[in-house]
Amino acid sequence: MNANEFREFGRAAVDFMADYLENIRDREVLPSVHTGYLSELLPDEIPEKAEDWREIMQDMHKFILPGITHWQSPNFHAYFMSACSYPSMIGELLSAGFSVIGFNWWASPACTELEVITMDWLGKFLGLPEEFLNCHDGPGGGVIQGSASESVLIAMLAAREQMVRRMREEQPHVSESDIRGRLVAYTSDQSNSCVEKSGILSAIPIRLLTTDAKCALRGDILKEAIEKDLEIGKMPTVCVVSLGTTGSCAFDNIEEVGKVCQEYNMWLHIDAAYAGAALCCPEYRHIINGIELADSFNFNLHKWMMVNFDCCAMWVKNADLLVEAFNVERIYLQNHFQGQQKAPDYRHWQIPLGRRFRALKVWITLRTVGAEGIRSKIRHHISLAQYFKTLVTSDDRFEVIGESIFGLVCFRLRGECSFTKKLLKQITERKKLFMIHTTIHGKLVIRFAICGYDPQLTDIDFAWKEILYCLKDIDYNPSEVQDKVCEKFSSMIVSERI
Amino acid sequence: MNANEFREFGRAAVDFMADYLENIRDREVLPSVHTGYLSELLPDEIPEKAEDWREIMQDMHKFILPGITHWQSPNFHAYFMSACSYPSMIGELLSAGFSVIGFNWWASPACTELEVITMDWLGKFLGLPEEFLNCHDGPGGGVIQGSASESVLIAMLAAREQMVRRMREEQPHVSESDIRGRLVAYTSDQSNSCVEKSGILSAIPIRLLTTDAKCALRGDILKEAIEKDLEIGKMPTVCVVSLGTTGSCAFDNIEEVGKVCQEYNMWLHIDAAYAGAALCCPEYRHIINGIELADSFNFNLHKWMMVNFDCCAMWVKNADLLVEAFNVERIYLQNHFQGQQKAPDYRHWQIPLGRRFRALKVWITLRTVGAEGIRSKIRHHISLAQYFKTLVTSDDRFEVIGESIFGLVCFRLRGECSFTKKLLKQITERKKLFMIHTTIHGKLVIRFAICGYDPQLTDIDFAWKEILYCLKDIDYNPSEVQDKVCEKFSSMIVSERI
Repeated sequence: MNANEFREFGRAAVDFMADYLENIRDREVLPSVHTGYLSELLPDEIPEKAEDWREIMQDMHKFILPGITHWQSPNFHAYFMSACSYPSMIGELLSAGFSVIGFNWWASPACTELEVITMDWLGKFLGLPEEFLNCHDGPGGGVIQGSASESVLIAMLAAREQMVRRMREEQPHVSESDIRGRLVAYTSDQSNSCVEKSGILSAIPIRLLTTDAKCALRGDILKEAIEKDLEIGKMPTVCVVSLGTTGSCAFDNIEEVGKVCQEYNMWLHIDAAYAGAALCCPEYRHIINGIELADSFNFNLHKWMMVNFDCCAMWVKNADLLVEAFNVERIYLQNHFQGQQKAPDYRHWQIPLGRRFRALKVWITLRTVGAEGIRSKIRHHISLAQYFKTLVTSDDRFEVIGESIFGLVCFRLRGECSFTKKLLKQITERKKLFMIHTTIHGKLVIRFAICGYDPQLTDIDFAWKEILYCLKDIDYNPSEVQDKVCEKFSSMIVSERI
Repeated sequence: MNANEFREFGRAAVDFMADYLENIRDREVLPSVHTGYLSELLPDEIPEKAEDWREIMQDMHKFILPGITHWQSPNFHAYFMSACSYPSMIGELLSAGFSVIGFNWWASPACTELEVITMDWLGKFLGLPEEFLNCHDGPGGGVIQGSASESVLIAMLAAREQMVRRMREEQPHVSESDIRGRLVAYTSDQSNSCVEKSGILSAIPIRLLTTDAKCALRGDILKEAIEKDLEIGKMPTVCVVSLGTTGSCAFDNIEEVGKVCQEYNMWLHIDAAYAGAALCCPEYRHIINGIELADSFNFNLHKWMMVNFDCCAMWVKNADLLVEAFNVERIYLQNHFQGQQKAPDYRHWQIPLGRRFRALKVWITLRTVGAEGIRSKIRHHISLAQYFKTLVTSDDRFEVIGESIFGLVCFRLRGECSFTKKLLKQITERKKLFMIHTTIHGKLVIRFAICGYDPQLTDIDFAWKEILYCLKDIDYNPSEVQDKVCEKFSSMIVSERI
């Protein structure tokens, strides 16, 4: 493909995406294909000869679009939102065009430096303590990771290495593997499955602690678990708390948990994947009370901050601990830029060595939307959720479960869980709305998350109408209402961390 | 930004990239900025108000371009190439536009299915054994990972869990942590630093074994190391071999090493990050003799196959072992698509749960270039390297070190290493060529890798001329030539895995 063909193809692709997003309400949010549909349509082998881009654009319509679940539809209310914005798309295009691999400063100074700068912009925007910022004198700093999963894993690995080093100093006769075998980690039973997965990957057993009535992890529960572990010779190493759990957007009590972590000299990581973005609105900043006790913090720009996946901002109070944990001696570059504060060697802050120029999409998005625009988008989402909540609470057949202070409302039909289950099945089969269920304190609930490219009040009305329409088709008998605890549903299905 | 502004911005960005790549020879390959240059130019905080995209495009010229190391310049000969192609850029744009997170089939069927299909296209294109393909009846399959670093880490983690399970069955009285403490891994001292890093992250000590005269790992060396470890009670678990090492593009002996792995029931992973792409040319397929003995294999499309970073294809012979190692029970989805062969739950094949629609850029690139086009690109690169080799060998002052059968030539000035070091310093300071050094068997050599968007024969002539020009400026005295081994240079600087 030569440059002129690219100019044409590029224009066609830009128009395709603009048309797609402008007309997204015309499509059912869920696709109607069967598994294996695509292999029936596409050839078995790579084509020998080059094909024209126009054929590909036709095939996008014929083969790809029918198999898309439309995350940008305002009728997508499953999981949490996956951010999408026009400027961010351009950022991806430009980053792909430069194709620089910014594993150190020298490999493309702009790549490292723009990341340093935009992470500081974001840290200030969220009101993080300045110890976390790159511009602060200390060893803290911010970095872009691919996902919250990776941030949590990195925090756990750094905590593991810190503990191993510390114990080796205190008890030099004990082997590293003996120490590793005694480490233990903590999180709540409401935290995202990625936390548990990080425990598996880092080979640290992780305790899923019970939460209070608001689904929050509290200090006393953690303390009790730690004491039990100490009694059997374990070494409490790290606790991962959630700000905005996937199930019900609950908030662990950072102040209480933080003090316990401090008492036992443990690493505290805060996973604010979804809710963290709301910190840019001063009225929500109270949710991070106690953050000064944390060692690391992450939130996803690719959820609520208009930068498309993958873009997870992570800050650490002491980046040296990451470098110590991940640095392989022989990869030291011998250039004289190494270690300088304005030019961190980001490859030592992450799992892979290579890295895309992701700061470009962050920079372009933040500038074209502005602080004002981001705050207003988040407040708009929250107001839509609150509007939906009023619709639900105005109908006696339904109940709202949990606090729903952000963009997620968990609701159910009063009575046996089977009614709610049937209702969700009916809704999903019609493919006009996409929601998923979870269980909160033994009750099956439907999660209604505000998602999509540009959700409006009329979309919420549409959703409520569709829910009521489907309710007519199930055999819901309010007289049978018994507020008993449901049988245990086989698992949470909402714990995917995106 | 509304759709119409996006259409304009998109066109401007497409034209920007086309102009950039068409005129890339006008720029010095290395930037002339100092560390911290960008923080002197950009504001300290996110702008409050939205800014016009035209300002951003101006700032791309003013602030970003001066800080770019031009990986797409034909005068970039450092590391290995970072792929860039017009169709791949469009793929990134479209993928960002859909913003689907394909963690399972239901989350966007096209995302999973196109990956299944294109990974099969690639597996066949490279001539991999059919056990590795998704379309084969067995439990094998291919998946897109972000980087070779991640593929190697995943292979090591899967091997670790397999060994722990196996030992737990054989010796149920031994604890998991005791088993983990005895595991050991192997690779060559020439393998990429990401292999060593994977050892650190997975907490498996990794032996860096010495290589033969051709920098290849041989079976007898591995066997000797394993026997030593068995004697001290270790459990040999996994061996990572390299096809095309970063230092000198050397090839480990898969047949020999594979037989040893089979004998000791160990996992064999093949990291073919750079050289793997050349398997699409039948004349190079002999380098994977013995691949039937491997458990997993990876190569980077983002090096030699025109798909931009991040895009590493990984195949495993038994994907169940990944799922067993990475699956967190509670994230099981209760949909009826789970586990079906045409719709693998790819989130269990990788570290994060979220995943981009990367198959789109693969599909678009492979189709618009065609099998023919890819083979021809790879052969062209190899021919340019061979041409450079003839230039070097025709000058008595220089010598070529190693075989240089692909797109990398390692060369040096005869005599003391300090000459070569001085020469490279001189060249780098002029910023017209970017090469890096490594050491091969104690000798400092300069790596000349064919990279860039569209390198031509004239670019190689330019490079050679520049090298000779710089040679005049250093005090090279051929009479001092002594072919002694250099002092050990402090480290390999080329081991970044990109």
